[in-house]
Formats: sequence, structure tokens, C-alpha cells
Amino acid sequence: MTQSWTLSPDRGFGPDPARLTIARRLYATVANLPIISPHGHVPPALLADPSAGFGSPADLFIIPDHYVTRMLYSQGLPLEGLGVPTRDGTPIETDHRAIWQRFADHFHLFRGTPTGLWLADELINVFGVTEKLTSASSQRIYDHLAERLAQPEYTPRALFERFNIAVLCTTDAATDPLAHHQALREQGWGDRIRPTFRPDAVVNLHAAGWSEQIARLSDMSGVEIINFTSYIRALEDRRAFFKRMGATATDHATLMPYTARLEPHECGTIFARALHGTATNDDAARFMGHMLLEMARMSAEDGLVMQLHVGSLRNHHDALFERFGPDIGADIPIQTEWTRNLRPLLNSFGHDPRFRLLLFTLDESGYGRELAPLAGHYPALLLGPPWWFFDSVNGMRRYLDRVIETAGLANTAGFNDDTRAFASIPTRHDIWRRVSCDWLAGMAVEGLIDEDDASAMALDCATRLAQRAYKL
Amino acid sequence: MTQSWTLSPDRGFGPDPARLTIARRLYATVANLPIISPHGHVPPALLADPSAGFGSPADLFIIPDHYVTRMLYSQGLPLEGLGVPTRDGTPIETDHRAIWQRFADHFHLFRGTPTGLWLADELINVFGVTEKLTSASSQRIYDHLAERLAQPEYTPRALFERFNIAVLCTTDAATDPLAHHQALREQGWGDRIRPTFRPDAVVNLHAAGWSEQIARLSDMSGVEIINFTSYIRALEDRRAFFKRMGATATDHATLMPYTARLEPHECGTIFARALHGTATNDDAARFMGHMLLEMARMSAEDGLVMQLHVGSLRNHHDALFERFGPDIGADIPIQTEWTRNLRPLLNSFGHDPRFRLLLFTLDESGYGRELAPLAGHYPALLLGPPWWFFDSVNGMRRYLDRVIETAGLANTAGFNDDTRAFASIPTRHDIWRRVSCDWLAGMAVEGLIDEDDASAMALDCATRLAQRAYKL
Amino acid sequence: MTQSWTLSPDRGFGPDPARLTIARRLYATVANLPIISPHGHVPPALLADPSAGFGSPADLFIIPDHYVTRMLYSQGLPLEGLGVPTRDGTPIETDHRAIWQRFADHFHLFRGTPTGLWLADELINVFGVTEKLTSASSQRIYDHLAERLAQPEYTPRALFERFNIAVLCTTDAATDPLAHHQALREQGWGDRIRPTFRPDAVVNLHAAGWSEQIARLSDMSGVEIINFTSYIRALEDRRAFFKRMGATATDHATLMPYTARLEPHECGTIFARALHGTATNDDAARFMGHMLLEMARMSAEDGLVMQLHVGSLRNHHDALFERFGPDIGADIPIQTEWTRNLRPLLNSFGHDPRFRLLLFTLDESGYGRELAPLAGHYPALLLGPPWWFFDSVNGMRRYLDRVIETAGLANTAGFNDDTRAFASIPTRHDIWRRVSCDWLAGMAVEGLIDEDDASAMALDCATRLAQRAYKL
Repeated sequence: MTQSWTLSPDRGFGPDPARLTIARRLYATVANLPIISPHGHVPPALLADPSAGFGSPADLFIIPDHYVTRMLYSQGLPLEGLGVPTRDGTPIETDHRAIWQRFADHFHLFRGTPTGLWLADELINVFGVTEKLTSASSQRIYDHLAERLAQPEYTPRALFERFNIAVLCTTDAATDPLAHHQALREQGWGDRIRPTFRPDAVVNLHAAGWSEQIARLSDMSGVEIINFTSYIRALEDRRAFFKRMGATATDHATLMPYTARLEPHECGTIFARALHGTATNDDAARFMGHMLLEMARMSAEDGLVMQLHVGSLRNHHDALFERFGPDIGADIPIQTEWTRNLRPLLNSFGHDPRFRLLLFTLDESGYGRELAPLAGHYPALLLGPPWWFFDSVNGMRRYLDRVIETAGLANTAGFNDDTRAFASIPTRHDIWRRVSCDWLAGMAVEGLIDEDDASAMALDCATRLAQRAYKL
Repeated sequence: MTQSWTLSPDRGFGPDPARLTIARRLYATVANLPIISPHGHVPPALLADPSAGFGSPADLFIIPDHYVTRMLYSQGLPLEGLGVPTRDGTPIETDHRAIWQRFADHFHLFRGTPTGLWLADELINVFGVTEKLTSASSQRIYDHLAERLAQPEYTPRALFERFNIAVLCTTDAATDPLAHHQALREQGWGDRIRPTFRPDAVVNLHAAGWSEQIARLSDMSGVEIINFTSYIRALEDRRAFFKRMGATATDHATLMPYTARLEPHECGTIFARALHGTATNDDAARFMGHMLLEMARMSAEDGLVMQLHVGSLRNHHDALFERFGPDIGADIPIQTEWTRNLRPLLNSFGHDPRFRLLLFTLDESGYGRELAPLAGHYPALLLGPPWWFFDSVNGMRRYLDRVIETAGLANTAGFNDDTRAFASIPTRHDIWRRVSCDWLAGMAVEGLIDEDDASAMALDCATRLAQRAYKL
Repeated sequence: MTQSWTLSPDRGFGPDPARLTIARRLYATVANLPIISPHGHVPPALLADPSAGFGSPADLFIIPDHYVTRMLYSQGLPLEGLGVPTRDGTPIETDHRAIWQRFADHFHLFRGTPTGLWLADELINVFGVTEKLTSASSQRIYDHLAERLAQPEYTPRALFERFNIAVLCTTDAATDPLAHHQALREQGWGDRIRPTFRPDAVVNLHAAGWSEQIARLSDMSGVEIINFTSYIRALEDRRAFFKRMGATATDHATLMPYTARLEPHECGTIFARALHGTATNDDAARFMGHMLLEMARMSAEDGLVMQLHVGSLRNHHDALFERFGPDIGADIPIQTEWTRNLRPLLNSFGHDPRFRLLLFTLDESGYGRELAPLAGHYPALLLGPPWWFFDSVNGMRRYLDRVIETAGLANTAGFNDDTRAFASIPTRHDIWRRVSCDWLAGMAVEGLIDEDDASAMALDCATRLAQRAYKL
């Protein structure tokens, strides 16, 4: 290894010396704080078994990461050649060194992207890689990584400690028995790794396998679901179970944040049609609109924080969905209207002191126009951090520039990494801490806030807002 | 008072030394120019009586300012506890020291917001406060402010002079007798404080109390309104009266900028339905679309500049509206479409040399996409400054960045403060002058304009564009 | 000429010294590269005849340039007085010195606009003007320009060489005989000046003169168009002809990117209605949606790169269209929805390795929300550069900030100037090269990319991406 690969200690900071001085000072106070990871998709199995490992470098960095595979696919590399599992029996590459080589040959595609920055930080600072990933260095780096991954210091559990993660929340189906979380609780890890209740598969009447999911919901809850009333009871039962298992939040995904109350008899008839497999698209949309109100009602009653992720049109590419299933990089955002859609829910629960709702968007045009004004009014409402494609240096800056002036920092929910890529958690939080400190330094150097305020806001951004928002 | 509270003399300026040098030089030429305030909501009563005062510090800074109360409400403080008057008889806090203490206890919520910056500037530079507002300093500062507010140097009239306001336009209902403006004219203040004709309450068929407003319009105009023709005549009469009283502009608010001409018989039948209380929502929308064309026609004829404020969904929170009425911080923007909606109006009057239309938006995504291209074509059209939530340092920068490149500075209307908070007028204009000078300095230091151009543009931004746009 | 008019050698670069050093270094590597101009509207007649000239200074800089005339018109100057030809016989100014004077008298309107920057660069650096254009200097500068325009060094052909243009693609109607391109090929210029196939006038059933265009398409193709089948055959014939004449791309403009496949019998019946002059608006929209799929199919088969320009509502101002025709500055953008509209086309051809689709938008809100995620997934899809109103310093920065993080640079198509103003080609490319180098310098100085990456990306931006995207 002859070339040296490093990252600037000032990465993410603007270059002006006056601003840089403040940014460094602020960052020094938050850089090493424990990580609060209140929302993400790390598989709990990875952490429940103390001896679980990450597999090969390709298993860790490429195959399950749709940020990586979508970019390679967009430039003509078939997903089969990257080892992405198929569900139609199409054969895939099984040589992980070959997968790694393809990735390295195209690593330049990630220039200027957050994925590129995360990967560099992980390779350099988590795994000690010292030469830049290129076609030429690829196999040497593979050897290096494989060697590290075989060491006990590089198990998920060991990295969890090294990453200084105070708490990590997973996202779990409403019907999940939470066996891994049960194991974690028995090992004394229940306060550090918590489940989140995600009922989409039983709330979206047109979700794949809805009927089977309802049957499973009956089984798991012990409530025989024969109508809307028993369905609600089963959901309430599962929420209580999740809460007993350490959950502090729920999570919901919809294409649009439509909310509207149905008449009681409509709930019954739509649900009956769904059980008979005859629910229409309109039924599904109206049912979802009503269920968001029901979920808000339950949150007000049981205190679980409600998260709402809106605006991703899933599985845009039919042929790829047929072959590979969901979550392979073909989910595309659409425009989102919040002001009218959320009004029924906010009028019912927006001022309820027991209720808390966190919103996440893929349509940045709503930041200043709708979301910040709503969060700057309704007590129950907080804005989640920049999500998905916007979890980038520029995306964070746009968010801070547009949201804080209107909503105020206190009406936001701090940061969450929302990742299934466990090894990327520290770098994602680190970038947020850097960008927020740099942004605050910019405000301070322009005389818009004083440095005392900047210091307090840096701590808020790093951990306090997330802890408060998620009741952690 | 032991701690010192100050604002940077360079606030709002970027830190780069080369840019800063130019920004300071430009700002020095405009900082002390008289204030042109062509649109706002200061109650004329405050200025018509030379002995009128502001009341307590809570009366001045908190109770009537929905920028302040919404933020406190959003973090769980009931509006009742802030002294906001109720219309349903719910008791409210009457101890203004207690209200002030609650405000001070939560002053950190305004960190990084324009409200926070305005408040700091007012307290420090208008009222001479020298220690930062905190829970601990709260009552000392209250004493200080109360003492100042009792002095003759701190009446609205005295501050009007001190603020160096050349002209201030209020916003007044079409049915307003303009008694305060009459008094001001008699005192020789008619050129400095002018009314603006705002007919929304008689043009929006579904405005609260529309029938009573029409009756009042009959009374005030002396035209018995029995049909659409007499209604139009009454409006024309009131416009002529406002013009005689010094008005140079009208103001109109709509949810959408829909314009379309009705057939004459439709005007009559819809107006008849409205008089009988049977107008539908569709009637109201189509009537508004036609009336905007009528108002443009009248503006072309009488020369009053037409202002159009679009996109605020008023009174989003039903329960709060029931208790407190309008204007308590629950007005939320929606998306706005300009290109197709305004086309009928612009095709009729957009090239009329007698007509001038100023547009204001709450949907920044339209700045570069629709508004700047429209203003860069139609001679009658100018873009108003960043409005409401966007009257912030960042909001101004986004506006300048997106509008000027396409519309050109000459197709904008300078700045207006649009505030009912009289004491905040100088700081709002000051921030605009700072941000525009800093923005021009950025253009100059990057070689995109020369310094002669920057100097001329700084003067345009500070006063000349507003004077020209409003014929002041 | 006493005053000196110059442009900063660092124009377009941010002022921070560390960033500036990198920006200069990157720019030095690309500043003098040949120009790749893969999409634009230069009339081929200008280049086909070696002795063709530009006419007067007003002919070159004012009369045909709707960027210039729209801004003057927006401030009250009639187009007639600027010499813009009328089609209704209204007399126009014929004294080009008077036109030039009007332009000079209002040159301040272009302060801070890209047009202002282009004009300054052209006057100073192409034509050697040394005093600033003002009312006073106007006629001296006219003399200077007229003198230069009479010299052989200032013919289009001579400037083509001086501008170091490697290749320039024109945009040509599907029915164009390409006589000028034939002449160019015979002169050995066929590789440097290429046509582009633009079939809008025969694909949009409601385009002015559609029937005549179809008759012309029959003539030019030799295929008698009697039904949809022969219509498709005629189009395929013309594409083959354009390809033989050097074309590598097609170009399509639509108001919305709606795509959906019609049943074969629907194609026939709608086309028959169109031939009989009875096609409805719905027919036209559905036909366009189908034809975009047909054009994609043809592109996959013949390899011509497909360009799609979306979102301009043409001829917004009826009275001006009546008098002056199209392209006089009254085309106004509308919101654009890509995710759902393009889904049928992308599902059919988005993964076809023979197909390439370039998208251009006038709705920047779609950059990060829809376009970058789509381009970051579908292999056939690339994003075109900032278009029309956004071909500005700020527009380029917004594009780079929002697109690259999600799409990756490799999923973009470099720069194109899209201009009919031949003399502005070098300055437009120069600004893009400056802004992209400055943007990369910003990324490098913040430690987000290293300088090796920045260097490679600067070359990509300057020429390589465009060459690859357009197969040049």
C-alpha cells in the first residue's frame, strides 16, 4: 500500500477562516458524543447474536445497499453481477471478489455523492484502509477487509460499542414476534436496542399479502380478526406488546399524507370488502386516511411517538421488481401536499399534549412552504431530519436553511440515520454533526446568533433533540 | 446589568474579507436612507392620536404578534397564558409581567429565526436594553422597557420620526371610513401615512359576514347595492374615496390566483345568489376570478397599484379559530400555480401602460419557474419582495438568487415590511438593506457585476424600487 | 474611448482564497478545450455559406434574441421599436442605430442577469469593445461593431474557427431537406456541424399547420401518409435520412412528459380524426403520449439519442403572438411531474442498452425530487444541463448542488448552450466551465472530494460528458 488515502479533518466545513474557527470549536463539543439512532433499518438479528458477523466485504458494503447498487445499475451494471438475490431463479454472481472488483472499477461513480463520502469514511476510519479504492488496489483492499471482518473487534456487537451508540431503534413489522429483541433484553441490551412498531403491511389494504398478514396479526395478538373492531383491538394489543418490549415509537409510510375520518359503518364495510378481497383502490386510500387518524388516537393514548414517511412511489421499475423484489433502488419520490391532507389529523390531535407526530418528506419544496409553518404552529408536530436522498451535505444545508428560520430548531427532531447499513451509522451522524456545526458557525459569523446560542444548538442537533423527540 | 448584549455591526454580511469590504461600502450608502414602507398592517389609530402609546412591554412585543405567539404555542404554551384575547369568553392571563416572564423563559425558541433577530435589534437598538433576555434578566428588562414606554420619546409618533419613515401605507377595509387617516391629513401627515384599499371582505362571497359588509359598503358609498352593477359602482366609489385620501394602491388576498372572465349574466346571477345567501363554493371561486379582472380594470382606469397576495390557507386550526379568531399563527401556505391562472388577467391588462400589478407568493418554488419569467415579460407586472415566512435573511437570499437572474431587478418592487409590529419596521428594512448589499457584494466580488452597478442596485433595493412601484 | 470596460479573470469564482486557488487550477485545464455544442438553434444557413455575415450590430445582438427583447419589453419598450418583425404588417423600426440606442439606454436592465454577462463578454472579448455600453457610448460602440462585422475575421465561419468549436448540432424540422447541411458536408464540414431531428410539428396534432406539415412529410419521405402505419414509416424514413446526414440525436418538446401506450386501433382512429381535422384536445394529448413511446422505440432501434424538453407553455401572451408570432419571450414554465408520467416509457425502454434519453426541465423543484432519483436508477436516462432561464451562474450552482449528490455526475449530459445567438456560444460554455470548476473547488476545499477527482470531474463537465451523451 503505497498511496495514502485520507479524509480532511475539516471535511464538511466551509473554508472561510473565521467561520472555520467557530465550526471547529462547536464540532469539538459534539464529535464524540454517544450516537442516538432513533430510526433505522438495521436487522436486529445482526446484534442479537453476539457472535454474528458481517460476511464478506461484498456482503457488508455492496449487496444489501441499494444506494450502492442503484448507482452501479444506472451506469449499466446488471444487478445480477453485483450478487443481488433474485426471486425468480435468475442466477447471480456468487464470487464476492468479482463483485468487489466491479464495484472498485466503478468507484468513481460515487464522486460527490453522500454514498461516496460514507464509503470512504467507513473504509478509512472504521476499517483502516490506507490506499484509495481503485481497480488496481481493489483486491488488496478486499484482503484487508476480509482479514478485519474475521476479527472479533469487527463483529456488529464490537462495533456497536466502538461506535459509542447509546441507543438504536430498529423498524419491525406489526406482526413480528420480536424474538431478537427478546434475546437482547435477556442479555441486558433492551435499553440500547429497541423495536419500532410498523404496521404498514396490515394497514395498506393493497399491500402484498395483506390477507396473510391479517391472519398473522390474529395469531400474534390472540385476537381473532373478524371485523374492523377486532382489527383495531389486535393493533392495540400489538402496540402494547411493542411498548413492553421497549418501543417508544411507531412508523408509517404512505404515498400521500391524506387523512380523513370515515363514518363507523364505512370502516366496517371497507374492511369487510378487504377481507373478501374486493377492496377498491379508493377503499384502500380512504382506509389509510382513516387509519392514520386511528394511529394518532392510539399514540395519544399509549404515548408511542408517531413517525410518518411520505412520498416514495415504490417499485417504479416493474421488470426489476419482478426479478429482485422491493428495495433495490427504484423507489422514486413524488410531489407531496401537506397543508390540506394533514388538516383533519392535526385538527384532531395537533394540540394534544400526549401526542407527538414526526414528519419526513422527499419533496423539499414543502420544507419552507408547508412543513415549517405547520411545525411552527401545532404543538404535537416536529419535523424529522432530511430523509433518504437528502441525507447529504447539501441536503442537510438546504434543510437547515429553510426549516429553522420558520419552524425554529425546537420544532425539529434532530438527526436519524435511517439506514440498514450498520457500518455507516457513525459516518452519517458525523456528517450531520459537521454540517450542523458548520451551519451554526455560519449563522454566528454573520452575527445572526451568538456563540452561546450556537453552542447550545450544536448540542441540540447532535443528541438532545432526538432524545426528546423519541422520548429516549 | 452585568452582561453586555450587542449585535454585530456586520450582521447579515458574509465573512469573506473581500466581499465584506464591498458589502460594508454599499451598506454605508443606504443604511440611513429614509424608510419607504408601502405595505403593512400598522393600525392607523396608533399614529393618528399624537398621544397614543404602546401599552406594556407585553402589549408591544408579545400579545398582538402572531410570529411570537405561534412559536411559543408550538412548544406547548397556551395562547391564554400569553394574554391573547379570546372571543368565546375563555379567561386569559392579565398579568403582563407573568406573560413577559413566560416569553423570556422561552426566548431560546427564537434562536436562528427572523423574529429572534428583530426582537434583539428592537430591544437593543430601539429600547437600549443591554443584557440578554433570559429568565433571570426578564423582570429587570420589563422594568427598563416599561420606563421607556412611559417617556414621550417612545410614543408611536416620536418613533415614527426617529425611525426616519418617509411614508407608511396602512391596509384598510373597503368599508373603512378612514377616520384616522382623515385626522392625520388634518394634522399635515397625509403624505406620510396613507391608506390602502383592501376589498377582500366584500369580494370573497364566503368571507365571514359578507352580507353585513355589503350593507356597510352601501352605507359608506351611498350606492344602494341591489345587483352586480350597483356593487361595482359602489366599489368604484370607494376606490375614488381612498384615492382622495391619499391611497396609491389596493391589496387583494386569494387562496389561488385564478382569473377568468364571467359572462355579464353570470355576474348578475351569482351576485343575486350571494345576496340571497345561496352562493356555492364554485360561485365564490368563479366570482373571485372575475373580480380580480374587474379590479385590474379599475386599477388601469384609476391608477391605483394592484397588490395580490396569494396562497395562505387561513385558520387551519379550527379549535383555535373558534376561540381566538383569525391571525393567531395558524395560516399555512399551499402550492400556487401562476402561469395558467393569471393568464386571462395578464392577456387583458399585462401590457396596459396604466396598469401595475404586484405579486406576492408563499410558494418559493414559483420564483424562478413562473413569477420571474412572467415579470420578465409583462410590462405591468412586478414581483413583490419575499413575503411573510420568507422575510428572513435566508428567504431574502433565495429570492434574490432566483428572481433577479431572470426577472431583472427592475421588475421587482423593492422591499416592504408587511408588519403590524410598528417597532419592528426599522430592523426589517435594515435586514433587507444588509442582505441586499451583501448579495450585491457577492455578485461584485465574483465579477458578475461591477461596483458601479452594485451601488446603483443597492439604492434601488433600499428605496427607489419601492417608490417607483407604489408611485410614492 | 476613455473608460475601460473589462471582466474579472476570476469571474464566476467564489472569493475564498483556498477555494479560488483550486478553482483557478481546475479552470486552467478546461478553459481552452474545444467547444462541444450538441444542442442549439443556430441557423445552419449562417454557416453553410462561407461568405454569410451577421448583418448590423442590432441584427446580431438585439432583434433575434428574445432574451434581450423580452427584458426591454417588460420595462415598457414596444417590440416594434426594437425592430422585431411583425406578421400582421404593423410597421417597425428600421433604423438599426436607433434600435441600438434604445438598447444601450436600457442596458442597466441586464444587471445581474446571464444575458448581461453574456453581452459584456461578447462585446469585450469577441469584439474588442473597451468602454462600457451606455447611452453616451452607444453610437461609438455601434461604429466599432459595424466595422468589425464588415471584416472577414468576423464572419460566422471565421468565428466558428476562432471559437474552437469541435462540433455544433443544429435543430431541424423533420421535414427539413437539410440543404444547408448537405452543402456543409460537401465542404467537408459534416463532422463539425450536424443536424438534429425534431418532429414536433408533425407529432403534435394541434401544432399550427399540422396538415400541411404532414403533406410535406409525405413529400420529403416519399411515403404517402394515409394512415398511422404510413405515418410511422415516413418518420422512420426521415430519421434514417437525418442519420445519414450526420445526426446523432432527436429533440422533442412537450408541455407535460405524459407517456402511455395506445391500443393499435386507437392510434389509427385518432390519426384518422387528425387527418380529417376533428382530433380533440384529449386525442392530441394521448397521441403525444403514445408517440413519445414510438420515438423511444425508434431511438432504441436506430441509436439516435432522444432529447425531451418539457414544461414551457408557449405563447402565453395572445396579442403579442398575433402580431409577432412565436419565440418573442412570452413562453412561461409550468410545474412538471416526471415520476408517474414517464413511468410507461421508462418501464419499456429505461433499461434498454441501445436507448438513451436526455431530460430537460424548467421546474427546478423536480431536480432532486424526481429527476436525479430517476437518472440515478434507469441506465438509459441522463439529465441534461440547466435549461433556458436556468442557464445562469446561480442556476448552474443549484443544478450541481441538487442533482449530482443523488444522480452522480456520470448520469448527467454535460453542458449545451441551446442558443440561436451564435456569438454567445463561447461565453455560455465559459460560464459553465467556470461555475463547474468553482463548484468542484468548493467540494474539494470542504474535503468532500479529493483534487484528483475534482480534476477528472472538471474535464467531464467541460467536454467528456457531452461527447459521451450525444455519441460525438
